[in-house]
Amino acid sequence: MTPDEKLKSLGLTLPPPPKPVASYVPCVRTGHLVFVSGQLPFKDGKLAFTGKVPTDVSIEQAAEAARLAALNALAILAEAASNLENVAQIVRVGVFINSADGFTDQPKVANGASDLFAEIFGDIGRHARAAVGVNELPLNAAVELELTAELAAWPGYFRLK
Amino acid sequence: MTPDEKLKSLGLTLPPPPKPVASYVPCVRTGHLVFVSGQLPFKDGKLAFTGKVPTDVSIEQAAEAARLAALNALAILAEAASNLENVAQIVRVGVFINSADGFTDQPKVANGASDLFAEIFGDIGRHARAAVGVNELPLNAAVELELTAELAAWPGYFRLK
Amino acid sequence: MTPDEKLKSLGLTLPPPPKPVASYVPCVRTGHLVFVSGQLPFKDGKLAFTGKVPTDVSIEQAAEAARLAALNALAILAEAASNLENVAQIVRVGVFINSADGFTDQPKVANGASDLFAEIFGDIGRHARAAVGVNELPLNAAVELELTAELAAWPGYFRLK
Repeated sequence: MTPDEKLKSLGLTLPPPPKPVASYVPCVRTGHLVFVSGQLPFKDGKLAFTGKVPTDVSIEQAAEAARLAALNALAILAEAASNLENVAQIVRVGVFINSADGFTDQPKVANGASDLFAEIFGDIGRHARAAVGVNELPLNAAVELELTAELAAWPGYFRLK
Repeated sequence: MTPDEKLKSLGLTLPPPPKPVASYVPCVRTGHLVFVSGQLPFKDGKLAFTGKVPTDVSIEQAAEAARLAALNALAILAEAASNLENVAQIVRVGVFINSADGFTDQPKVANGASDLFAEIFGDIGRHARAAVGVNELPLNAAVELELTAELAAWPGYFRLK
Repeated sequence: MTPDEKLKSLGLTLPPPPKPVASYVPCVRTGHLVFVSGQLPFKDGKLAFTGKVPTDVSIEQAAEAARLAALNALAILAEAASNLENVAQIVRVGVFINSADGFTDQPKVANGASDLFAEIFGDIGRHARAAVGVNELPLNAAVELELTAELAAWPGYFRLK
């Protein structure tokens, strides 16, 4: 199955990639690498999970938030790569988790994103990862996720406007 | 206008790039990419903004701190690239903001840095970004900023000593 | 001295590289670069330093924790590079320090890792670095460290399984 077919089989649809925010952009390509900006768990234009884990948001919900942020990152990557079939490797995923005092299960939350990449891409979806807790995130999001990927094809130097 | 002319028109001067701290260095070049170490809002050898946002440092001051850290990163980049005209792309900016409980406007703070890169470099200054809150930073700085950039020219493998 | 001889002279042995955790892997190689996942201060399969700095763990202990996490990252890098002599440059080190309120000496903690890289590799061990405080880390580890390195040799596209 192609990544697009795999997405469909999981009942997932890529959201429209977010518009440029201001002086920073959804992603930048340099050589074979694409760096995707930190993504929040937006769904249909609304932040779906806000607050601290596990007091405001359960671990399961936070994992879903990480999956949602990953889906947004994939939407950006799909546009940058023209097609997800041009992705050669998910290289690195950074996950920041809005953590209540004493919460130390950040890996379980980040797995929500990591599992999605593996489901969509198989072996080339397995990535290096850093998952850490932080005390506050933009808009009180439960999770922020950034992504670095390698492209196989070279559809010209491209950057989202 | 060249980046240097643009800096001048903004009334800005690059500070002397910081000396190597110890076992780590201001930046490392690998292929086309330069990774700049985390920079604090130093001005004339003194940390200009310390404490948490927005309780000790206002959002506007914190944005100025981010701009200052960005200027220090540019000074390092300018030395690594021989000349800022050799910069092909600002690739990724990571901004860590010393956040008081309940502060969720990290993007407004990070814009202080992002806007500077766009002002100096135009389109190639627009970058991928991750901005997150943290509970503590080195020397109680209000902001720490790290940078990845792509160079166009290849003035030999170079690393600041 | 080769890096392996240097390790030996310091009385250090690389631990067995950690097994893949799940959907993420110990490291990913893309072109000349290897991205190593966030490492904790594991020793003989046990987390050696847990809690916040400096209340639960002293600065000196935390620096030792950073050194231990760096040693684990080196074990992964050694396997990815076939041999540490194939490492061309330690590029970037990210250090997250589990920080008690008011702790601002993150650089002293991170030096535990930075010094090790310089001891083992000399000049090519000197790296770009970002060291920040965070309020919580996985498994309550005192430190988490991630690493990007450049390889000189190309032993084929390789990724730890």
